[in-house]
Amino acid sequence: MSQRVLNFNAGPATLPFEVLTKTAQDVVDFNGAGMGLMEMSHRSAAFMAVMEKTEALLRELMQIPDNYKVLFLQGGASSQFFMVPMNLLTPESKATYLNTGTWAKKAIAEARLFGDIEVAYSGENEKFKRIPAPGEYQVDSKSQYLYFVSNNTIFGTQFQEMPESEVMLISDMSSDILSRQIDVSKFGLIFAGAQKNLGPAGVTVVIIREDLLDRTPEQIPTMLKYRTHADKGSMFNTPPCFAIYVVCKVLEWLKKQGGVAAIEERNRKKSALLYQVIDAGDFYRGHAEKGSRSHMNVSFNLPTPELEAQFIAEAAAIGLSGLKGHRSIGGCRASIYNAFELEGVKKLAQFMETFEADNPA
Amino acid sequence: MSQRVLNFNAGPATLPFEVLTKTAQDVVDFNGAGMGLMEMSHRSAAFMAVMEKTEALLRELMQIPDNYKVLFLQGGASSQFFMVPMNLLTPESKATYLNTGTWAKKAIAEARLFGDIEVAYSGENEKFKRIPAPGEYQVDSKSQYLYFVSNNTIFGTQFQEMPESEVMLISDMSSDILSRQIDVSKFGLIFAGAQKNLGPAGVTVVIIREDLLDRTPEQIPTMLKYRTHADKGSMFNTPPCFAIYVVCKVLEWLKKQGGVAAIEERNRKKSALLYQVIDAGDFYRGHAEKGSRSHMNVSFNLPTPELEAQFIAEAAAIGLSGLKGHRSIGGCRASIYNAFELEGVKKLAQFMETFEADNPA
Repeated sequence: MSQRVLNFNAGPATLPFEVLTKTAQDVVDFNGAGMGLMEMSHRSAAFMAVMEKTEALLRELMQIPDNYKVLFLQGGASSQFFMVPMNLLTPESKATYLNTGTWAKKAIAEARLFGDIEVAYSGENEKFKRIPAPGEYQVDSKSQYLYFVSNNTIFGTQFQEMPESEVMLISDMSSDILSRQIDVSKFGLIFAGAQKNLGPAGVTVVIIREDLLDRTPEQIPTMLKYRTHADKGSMFNTPPCFAIYVVCKVLEWLKKQGGVAAIEERNRKKSALLYQVIDAGDFYRGHAEKGSRSHMNVSFNLPTPELEAQFIAEAAAIGLSGLKGHRSIGGCRASIYNAFELEGVKKLAQFMETFEADNPA
Repeated sequence: MSQRVLNFNAGPATLPFEVLTKTAQDVVDFNGAGMGLMEMSHRSAAFMAVMEKTEALLRELMQIPDNYKVLFLQGGASSQFFMVPMNLLTPESKATYLNTGTWAKKAIAEARLFGDIEVAYSGENEKFKRIPAPGEYQVDSKSQYLYFVSNNTIFGTQFQEMPESEVMLISDMSSDILSRQIDVSKFGLIFAGAQKNLGPAGVTVVIIREDLLDRTPEQIPTMLKYRTHADKGSMFNTPPCFAIYVVCKVLEWLKKQGGVAAIEERNRKKSALLYQVIDAGDFYRGHAEKGSRSHMNVSFNLPTPELEAQFIAEAAAIGLSGLKGHRSIGGCRASIYNAFELEGVKKLAQFMETFEADNPA
C-alpha cells in the first residue's frame, strides 16, 4: 500500500483508517456471512441490525430526544433544500432564512417555490466573511421556522452559538454535525449529508421532530414525504445500505474517541493551531472574521495568487493534499473534520510557518 | 474467509467476486493515491475519470445513441416513479401504463399526481402471472408515453419482446437491464436501480432522450429536474461516488464476459435449467405462465407451505441462500441476475430434483 496522504478535502473527506480496513473486509465477506455487505438483502436480519445500531449510536452520541425520528435518505443535502419547505410550508405560510453562504442561498431559492420566504440576514455583500450577531436580525413571529447553515464550508464560517428564537430552528449541519455538542430539542429538523463528518457520499441523515410529520400536504409524491420514511424505519424502499453501514462504523469510532464532547475539544485544538499561525503575522489572512471562524474549514489567503499556487503545490509534494480553496473564492482551505487527526494539523501548521519563512512577502 | 454462499437474493444481490476484492483494495487505497475511494473529492481527476469510464462503458455495452443522456441519480427506482411524470406530464396530458405487478402499480399511483393516467392492462385479477400479449391493450395516440416494467421481480414475469407502440416507451428495467440486448432508440427513457444487475443499492441509472429535457415545467425543485443533472454530468451535487465506482467495476466485468449478447445467452441457459425441473412434473409449479417467464427471477411453489419451508431451510443448510419468495406471494424464488454463475444454478437444479425425490407429494 502507498503511504497515506493527509487529506484536507472538504468532502468527500478523510475517514478513520480503522473504518476503511474493517469496511474492506466486510465488502468481501460480511462478518463471516459468506457474502459481502453490498450483496446482503436490506431485509436480512444482519442488515436490519446494522440499521438499528446506526440509529441507536446516533441517538446516543447526539442525545436525540425520543420525540424525534432519525431518517437515512438519499439525494444529498441538496434534496433537503426542497424537501424541508415542501413538507413544512404552504403557499400562504412564511419561513425565515439566514443567508450565510452558497448553500444557504441555494436552500432559499428552493424554498421560494413553496412559501413566503423572508431573508432576515444576508452576508453576500461582505463576501460571507461572518455570521450575524444574535440581535442583528428579526424573525417574524408568524414564521414556521428559522433556517440556517451551522457551518459554511466554502467561507470557513460557523455559528459559534446556535441562534435563539421563538420559532423552531431548522439547520443544515452537513459540515459540522457531531463535531460539537448541541441541544437537539431546540430544533424542528436537522439534516446532514454524510460525506464530511458521518461517512461516504450517498446518504443524508434527517432528524425530525415527530409532530412535524403531520404537516406534509397530501398531494406530494410518496418518496418525498418524511412520514413515508419515518413510518418504515427508512426501509420504505431499498436504502443506501453500504453508506449507512459506513456511517455505523464511523459512529462506533467516534464513541471510542470519547463521543462528541471529546471530539469537540480536539476539534478546537486543531483549528486553534492553524488560526494561531494565521494571526501571528500578515502573511496568511483568514477569510472569516475572528468571531465567526469555523473549526471545520479554515479558509485563508496568501499575499498573491502565485504564492497560493506555490503553497498548494509544495504542500501536495510532501503529502498535504486537498488544500485548494473552493473555486468560488480561491485561495486555500484546510478542512479538518472529526476524522482528521491532530498530528496532521500540526504538520500543516509547521509547513505554513516554514513556507512563510522561506517566502518573505 | 468463510466459504461463499450461493446468494439467490432478489436485490441487493450477488456481485462478481473479482469486483468485491478489487473494491476492498480501493476502499483502503484507491489505485495508490494514498487515500481510499470514499475519501476522494468527487471533483478530483481520479474520480472524474471513474464517472467518465462508467458512462462510456454503459454506452458501449447498451449501444446507447448519442442523442441520449446517461444520468447517475439517487433515491432508487421508487423516485423515478414520480420523477418521470413530474418531468414529462402536465395535468392536461395523458400517459398509458401497463400494470404487470407491484412496482408498476406503485408507479401508476405516483403518476396520477401529475397527469391523466390510463391503465391499458392490469394483471392484478390473475395474480400478475403473465405479461399482456401485443394486441391485448390499446394505447391512446394522445398518450405522451407507454410505461411498463420490463421484468417483474416478485411474480417472475418478463416482457419477452418489448411492446410495439406509436408513442414512445418508458421502462423500469431495474431487474433486467444489461441482461439482454435491447434497442434503446425505441425508448424515451429507461431507468434502473443498481442493486440487481448493476452494482450496490444507492445509485439509479437514467437514460433519457435529450429532447425530453425541455419538457420539464419550470416550477419544480432543481434537484428533481432531469436537465439539472444532464447539464452537469450528474455532478450538480455530490454524487453517490462509491456506488458509481462499483457500477464501473461491474460493467468492466460484464465487458470481459463478452458483453450483453454473451450474458443474454448465459442467462437463458441458467433459467432454462430451473424451468426444466419445474416442467418435469407436478411437484414444482411456476408462478408465471410459460410465455411470460422471467430469466432473472424464477418464482415457484411446492405442494404445501410446509414443504416450501423445509425446502428453503434444507437449501440454506447446504449454502443455497435467499430462496424465500417475496412476502406478498410466498413460495420460493431464485433470483439469478447477470452475476449469478451457471454452476450455482446447476447446484440449485440438482437440489430441486433431489428434494423432490426425497419428499414425494
